[in-house]
Amino acid sequence: MYRNNALAIILFFVSHGITAQNSETDALFISDIHRTALTNNFAYEQLEYLTKSIGPRFSGTPQASAAVEYTFQLMNDMGMDTVWLQPCEVPRWKRGEPSKVKIVGSQSVGTVVLPSIALGNSIGTQSLGMTAEIVEVQSLDEVDQLAESLNGKIVFYNRPADPGQYRTFNAYGGAVDQRVFGASRAAKYGSIGVVVRSVTPSIDNIPHTGSMVYTDTTQKIPAIAISTKAADFLGQLVKKEKVRLNIRSGGEILSPVISYNVIGEIRGSVHPDEILLVGGHLDSWDVGEGAHDDGSGCVHALDVIHLLKELDYQPKRTIRCVMFMNEENGLKGALAYQEESDKKGEFHMAAIESDSGGFTPRSFSCDGDTSIFQARFQKMNTWAPLLEPYYIIFEKGGSGADINPLKGQMGMLMGLRPDSQRYFDYHHTATDTFDKVNCRELELGSAAMTSLVYLLDKYGL
Amino acid sequence: MYRNNALAIILFFVSHGITAQNSETDALFISDIHRTALTNNFAYEQLEYLTKSIGPRFSGTPQASAAVEYTFQLMNDMGMDTVWLQPCEVPRWKRGEPSKVKIVGSQSVGTVVLPSIALGNSIGTQSLGMTAEIVEVQSLDEVDQLAESLNGKIVFYNRPADPGQYRTFNAYGGAVDQRVFGASRAAKYGSIGVVVRSVTPSIDNIPHTGSMVYTDTTQKIPAIAISTKAADFLGQLVKKEKVRLNIRSGGEILSPVISYNVIGEIRGSVHPDEILLVGGHLDSWDVGEGAHDDGSGCVHALDVIHLLKELDYQPKRTIRCVMFMNEENGLKGALAYQEESDKKGEFHMAAIESDSGGFTPRSFSCDGDTSIFQARFQKMNTWAPLLEPYYIIFEKGGSGADINPLKGQMGMLMGLRPDSQRYFDYHHTATDTFDKVNCRELELGSAAMTSLVYLLDKYGL
Repeated sequence: MYRNNALAIILFFVSHGITAQNSETDALFISDIHRTALTNNFAYEQLEYLTKSIGPRFSGTPQASAAVEYTFQLMNDMGMDTVWLQPCEVPRWKRGEPSKVKIVGSQSVGTVVLPSIALGNSIGTQSLGMTAEIVEVQSLDEVDQLAESLNGKIVFYNRPADPGQYRTFNAYGGAVDQRVFGASRAAKYGSIGVVVRSVTPSIDNIPHTGSMVYTDTTQKIPAIAISTKAADFLGQLVKKEKVRLNIRSGGEILSPVISYNVIGEIRGSVHPDEILLVGGHLDSWDVGEGAHDDGSGCVHALDVIHLLKELDYQPKRTIRCVMFMNEENGLKGALAYQEESDKKGEFHMAAIESDSGGFTPRSFSCDGDTSIFQARFQKMNTWAPLLEPYYIIFEKGGSGADINPLKGQMGMLMGLRPDSQRYFDYHHTATDTFDKVNCRELELGSAAMTSLVYLLDKYGL
Repeated sequence: MYRNNALAIILFFVSHGITAQNSETDALFISDIHRTALTNNFAYEQLEYLTKSIGPRFSGTPQASAAVEYTFQLMNDMGMDTVWLQPCEVPRWKRGEPSKVKIVGSQSVGTVVLPSIALGNSIGTQSLGMTAEIVEVQSLDEVDQLAESLNGKIVFYNRPADPGQYRTFNAYGGAVDQRVFGASRAAKYGSIGVVVRSVTPSIDNIPHTGSMVYTDTTQKIPAIAISTKAADFLGQLVKKEKVRLNIRSGGEILSPVISYNVIGEIRGSVHPDEILLVGGHLDSWDVGEGAHDDGSGCVHALDVIHLLKELDYQPKRTIRCVMFMNEENGLKGALAYQEESDKKGEFHMAAIESDSGGFTPRSFSCDGDTSIFQARFQKMNTWAPLLEPYYIIFEKGGSGADINPLKGQMGMLMGLRPDSQRYFDYHHTATDTFDKVNCRELELGSAAMTSLVYLLDKYGL
């Protein structure tokens, strides 16, 4: 019923001048990788431990420390050649009392509590909260236009992540500026707090947290997200009447602490100085279990080493597995990694990050310095027929937040791109839990990454 | 971050000799189709009605009749040019008392009840059930080898749907013969009943029903499926000791009744005799809600007409939407449709069935008489760049059970192939419910089918 014809792949290679023997070996090995991933379920079991036994792994929390300890021990148990912890100083933020966003004294709807969650890094309100009229805006620019009229008001950012876009990450990217910069922009004009529509194309009752940043020059004011259904409701209401909100939230910035990236590698037998990095980020938000974001990416990266060992593959290049710390609210792990790597004069021939969830893989998004990118991208595309039976393509685009700082090393940077349609149902919410991850879909991400690492290791770039 | 570059698509067409104007128009129209599907959620709302308000739609039941009535009215309300009911006589089977499969008197585990469900079309046991020793087999052939030694025993078919296969439909196809033919094969040698491992690569506690058939020459014996976890457990146990099972189930074959295919069409303005069929099957199993199988396919097909109307598209060819009846246990609707269509001398230039669930689409699987297939498949592949932004390809393979009988009309037959990794978690089970369908994933199936119908209508084959 489906096309999965090893012979067709072999013929393709013959017609393209690659030896039939190599291509047959490769197709079979990649098939073995997929079969092994789908039957031994290593990634799924590790994800269960990270999410159900450890739980959310927010930077600077005991659970983040537990995840560091656990993956350090696991890498040793897996028989990696070298395993080490790389220190990094991470910011700490404490959610404290849960947020409450309440419409008060509305003529048409009375008092209504809206599903809400404070944004990460936000200060809290006082314990009784603050009450003020709200002004709905669609953009940061609109705040600049309204300017002083916002004095003493609560600004309500309500531009949706466009559900009409096929690519949910683009929809997200088109709306997230309100979450990140909304508070400081509004504070500039005397606004006392902001309420932000959750950044997701889904319409539901689940509020999404995520990072926000304060600029140095403005006063800090509280920032709280509400669910998209609540935002639609509120948006309708402000068209009919003046609306006053009472907003209340905890939120406290604590002093930074030392945490760690967890790193393990198998040393290459022929080109040990050419590093192939696979990684995800170990930290998550403090709600949910960090299952898709980014427990899945961590176990994908671990599974690459696991699968290659299961299949007795001896790499020619060094394969390094990195659990980055603090991607969500600081990127401190990524920056520490890059700094030390550059200092040592390392060369990452390729780095692959998985940080888009544990869904069925659809592509690798490839990036690199323009001076070297095109030739390498073309070379990788000669491998495309080997991934075609799994519906995976190579495309141009960004890689991952944690590996992006390595761009100066002039290697290829790639992101695993699973199907993204469900990702923003769970992203940064209490519902990003283990049960939302399908075992087969997760394992196919491991298989895709392992297949690519195998090809990169065998043929170089 | 992702590639979605209309200009690149246009340039592709220019370099391949298709006018830039046409390709730009097509790319924009297909983009509009996707945007409209993702924002107005017609398919999702219709699916909610079919699954939550009507429920399971097993052939010959009042709910199947309700679904016929509802979709007939809906097609009229949607403003199709002609809407009609096409009678077909459907078999009727009644599950009756729920099944019970119990290990009795085991030395090591005592009495254990295993999750089970009777297979469709199976006769029941007597009310106290039947107790006998079981014999585990891996295939129909093994039954022939064991032959008379099976006399008086219960045969336990335990060959798994191979979880190591990427393509879950292939894994299913590799094991389903046990479910369909297992009872009659065992009855041939005097076996009194069969227990069959659920046909799914997933390992869980959910038993899967599905059709079985009795050959004319053997006695009818009861056939019951058990969950894959139960099958693994039982498989381990029979290696250690003689195991006796008590099996009990209802199951009654009733007299056939008249039911209907529901058909609506928009007449083509230029080539009304060239029919483009879109369809799914309206009936489902009696457990669950028939959400993925095949409520999703029905609403996909309806949505094709809905989306084209929303976008004011006037088709040159006749677009016909068919809700087939009785795919699950008889295919009587499909056969009635083909018979009448052939009698009228109709020509289905193309037929597309959606019967693989409401997941993100990955391909169209294309089939047709060999004498005409290759040239048409090549022509369709010149459209492939237009679907590339949505990661959808054309591939060779089977189409769908309901449209397959139309092969003699020498048109192109196609199946919408969504990502199949989760399909067999739900297939023929009580868990095939509305909440298992993601709105965006479902709507993208509608958009994919509509895009293909638009191209077929505009360019012909």
